[in-house]
Amino acid sequence: MRAVNTKQCAPIIYALLQLIIFYAGLNAVKGVWPLPHALTSSVEQYPLNPQTFAFDYGKHSATQQGCSLLDAAFRRYFSLIFPDYTAGRWTEEFLKCQISAFVVTHLPPINLYLNRYMCVCLNTGLETFSQLVYQDDLGSYFVNETFIEDFPRFQFRGVLLDTSRHYLPVHAILKTLDAMSYSKFNVFHWHIVDDPSFPYQSRSFPELSKKGAFHPATHVYTQSDVRRVISYARMRGIRVLPEFDSPGHTGSWGKGQSDLLTPCYKGGAPSGTFEVTSVFPDSYIHLGGDEVDFSCWRSNPHVRAFMQKMGFGGDFPKLEAFYIENIVNITSANNKTSIVWQDVFDYHERVGRSALSVVEVWKHGCYLCKVRQVTKAGLRVILASPWYLDLPGPTHNWARYYTVWPLAFPGSEKQKRLVIGGEVCMWGEYVDATNLFPKLWPRASAAAERLWSDEKQTSSVEKAFPRLEDFRCKLLRRGIQAGPLNVGHCKHEYQGV
Amino acid sequence: MRAVNTKQCAPIIYALLQLIIFYAGLNAVKGVWPLPHALTSSVEQYPLNPQTFAFDYGKHSATQQGCSLLDAAFRRYFSLIFPDYTAGRWTEEFLKCQISAFVVTHLPPINLYLNRYMCVCLNTGLETFSQLVYQDDLGSYFVNETFIEDFPRFQFRGVLLDTSRHYLPVHAILKTLDAMSYSKFNVFHWHIVDDPSFPYQSRSFPELSKKGAFHPATHVYTQSDVRRVISYARMRGIRVLPEFDSPGHTGSWGKGQSDLLTPCYKGGAPSGTFEVTSVFPDSYIHLGGDEVDFSCWRSNPHVRAFMQKMGFGGDFPKLEAFYIENIVNITSANNKTSIVWQDVFDYHERVGRSALSVVEVWKHGCYLCKVRQVTKAGLRVILASPWYLDLPGPTHNWARYYTVWPLAFPGSEKQKRLVIGGEVCMWGEYVDATNLFPKLWPRASAAAERLWSDEKQTSSVEKAFPRLEDFRCKLLRRGIQAGPLNVGHCKHEYQGV
Repeated sequence: MRAVNTKQCAPIIYALLQLIIFYAGLNAVKGVWPLPHALTSSVEQYPLNPQTFAFDYGKHSATQQGCSLLDAAFRRYFSLIFPDYTAGRWTEEFLKCQISAFVVTHLPPINLYLNRYMCVCLNTGLETFSQLVYQDDLGSYFVNETFIEDFPRFQFRGVLLDTSRHYLPVHAILKTLDAMSYSKFNVFHWHIVDDPSFPYQSRSFPELSKKGAFHPATHVYTQSDVRRVISYARMRGIRVLPEFDSPGHTGSWGKGQSDLLTPCYKGGAPSGTFEVTSVFPDSYIHLGGDEVDFSCWRSNPHVRAFMQKMGFGGDFPKLEAFYIENIVNITSANNKTSIVWQDVFDYHERVGRSALSVVEVWKHGCYLCKVRQVTKAGLRVILASPWYLDLPGPTHNWARYYTVWPLAFPGSEKQKRLVIGGEVCMWGEYVDATNLFPKLWPRASAAAERLWSDEKQTSSVEKAFPRLEDFRCKLLRRGIQAGPLNVGHCKHEYQGV
Repeated sequence: MRAVNTKQCAPIIYALLQLIIFYAGLNAVKGVWPLPHALTSSVEQYPLNPQTFAFDYGKHSATQQGCSLLDAAFRRYFSLIFPDYTAGRWTEEFLKCQISAFVVTHLPPINLYLNRYMCVCLNTGLETFSQLVYQDDLGSYFVNETFIEDFPRFQFRGVLLDTSRHYLPVHAILKTLDAMSYSKFNVFHWHIVDDPSFPYQSRSFPELSKKGAFHPATHVYTQSDVRRVISYARMRGIRVLPEFDSPGHTGSWGKGQSDLLTPCYKGGAPSGTFEVTSVFPDSYIHLGGDEVDFSCWRSNPHVRAFMQKMGFGGDFPKLEAFYIENIVNITSANNKTSIVWQDVFDYHERVGRSALSVVEVWKHGCYLCKVRQVTKAGLRVILASPWYLDLPGPTHNWARYYTVWPLAFPGSEKQKRLVIGGEVCMWGEYVDATNLFPKLWPRASAAAERLWSDEKQTSSVEKAFPRLEDFRCKLLRRGIQAGPLNVGHCKHEYQGV
């Protein structure tokens, strides 16, 4: 088969992907999740032979053989496309050589060309292609002739993991990144610290995790762990958005830095912020800012004295605004764009919102009213309210996360464009590595399709159901412990899990 | 330490267990789950050395060395009590020899004597003992001097698994049996077949699974699988109660036996029933009988003709009663006691309930009203209504399964005695091996304590919580993927999982 790219990939996020696969066969393709914007497939099936199959670079590709990112993706997707072939028969090392050989020799006629790729094209294109390959009863691999034109509807498609309320082992985070890439999520929002524990092992403030983590050795993320997560995510086209939520949700910070949780810890913030901006390379940083308990500040005589000095009187939202503005300014001085929870927007109503840029809407009720309000103020929005997956509900409630219409509010085209995406949140009160995967998958995939695909083509729960069931079986075969959607079974049920 | 048994174990179920452990230490014991009826522990701690620790048979024990059941339990609990010691350092075979050697040499002073044991005493006694052992920060093992007198409040403490709506691999069933024994459950109610699939590979009717299973080779329980489950359960003091639910819930039966789902398939029933009674040795058998769809029978001219012949007129409950009485009689002719869902009791109101013996109450609403009614009719009751764990709810809702009072209905002492126990039900619509364990544990353990322990001592959710949290950590360390109850962590979190 052969992929002819007629258009260039747009800058990273609004990528346009084209993939044409020739030669096809008799079986119908079960489907791709999330649904591509345009997909036409023939009934003709074409056999794929893992012994001769090869990925190759296109003649006009800006990048050629030797690009580690693409080579690694080729290796990864070779295994995903031919699970039986790679399962027992190939060691990782041998496979590596084998694939390199393919790339060099690119035996006809089975070559896949990807031209002018960028991260997002690469990962999403290979992912789409891998979902098109299927096996017959004898285990032979086939792909149908398929034409696909695809691009994401929203640029920001995130999954939040909370590693403070329960510690998640690094391997659980990496596996989540794998599963995210299968559903074309592209932002891992790492809510790394919060009240219950401080697992981030800071270079500047090592005492924070030493005293604030559940355990200073086994329940921390070292600098090397963080680098590993960032690199693993990058290989899969996923950005890591760190959140160091303040000034609320900092209970665990005070354990290691006794002078930190004082009325105004602005003095300590710059160096901490600087560390965060250098450790996490992403251009965005999440500053939190939710659920600040003013009654706590009110009770503190030092806070009250500071407020009097600053001329704030008893206006605690003003104090919070002062704090947030300071930290936002520090962030932007470090060339980062800050994201805050909607609480900050709400409290800044009285003191100006000029410092803010991206607001994450998370509260329940009429969340689209808030989206409208924030975009009207000219600020960008990430929508999280309808996708709090940690809330109770049976697995089959995936439809609840599917039937969400992020732009269904009255507003101008400009306002709609300010909605940059959405995010699935998996808060950690009742979630740890024992139940994370069946809680997150495939329900998060329902949100993923909403954020990726054309809304008109994906408005029917009934039509989506068999495709999602099939996708869930693919996740299972790839080793992701995705929960069942209803009565039934998968052909390859527990080999990967 | 030394266990002196002053009373004889009562027949199997109403066992009275006594265990006295001498020598003790400084740390307090965190607790035993389910709570023993009497437990007194000293603050003195006594070290346990895995190199010299030995189980031994008491002088007056009816059974002596060489009893395979007890020897196996000793081996199992040696590993559970000394997880670090056995983790990497001992192969199974070497361990076996090592333990045999301990039994032979029984080095003083660390011997545990269990006299006049029976299955239930053995398993529950060893389980209790294993929960009393703890480690200090250096990994050394300790036990405090403890006096325990214990016995189960109810004789029937069941867990239902549904292997029809989703197939559960045998290893998932075996692991469930392990976890059940840790919570002192003693009945595995195997809802083995139902409408969606027929995974039981029958000797008499092989076509049933060939055509009725999700897959005739990978999604079936062979005769050898069934024997393995029964034997594994028996080793852990657990009975296997099979359920072949009829006349409703038989959709999958018709796929393999085209003449089976006819108006009256009484002719086919005896041989099938005979097979079931011979394959499953337990003296109880669950006949189902729930949710019969009379409109289906009504639509069938053959059914109507049969009813006319029998003089039933249009009385479908009478037809159902006729069917159930027949199958109950066949069951009792095979020396088995039958259990039926409450629907059968409800429909037999008009035709006499003499054939019935045990009724399982499962419907919601005022379930204690039904318990009262059934016991008033002189029939035994198993209570399931409050323990449908597959229904949606956050993990921390364990309290909902804990605050259940099975005897809180107005009735005579005789009536109360007819409540023989309860059962946790895990129906399979949205449950398979990907999410079974965190859904079942530790929430089922809450029900287990209700069924085992003294109600007065275990009425407080607040008091129970830290003990259950500790027990959940024990489950995790033993490799049971038990879900979290709230924010926090376990010291040994993911080694076993």
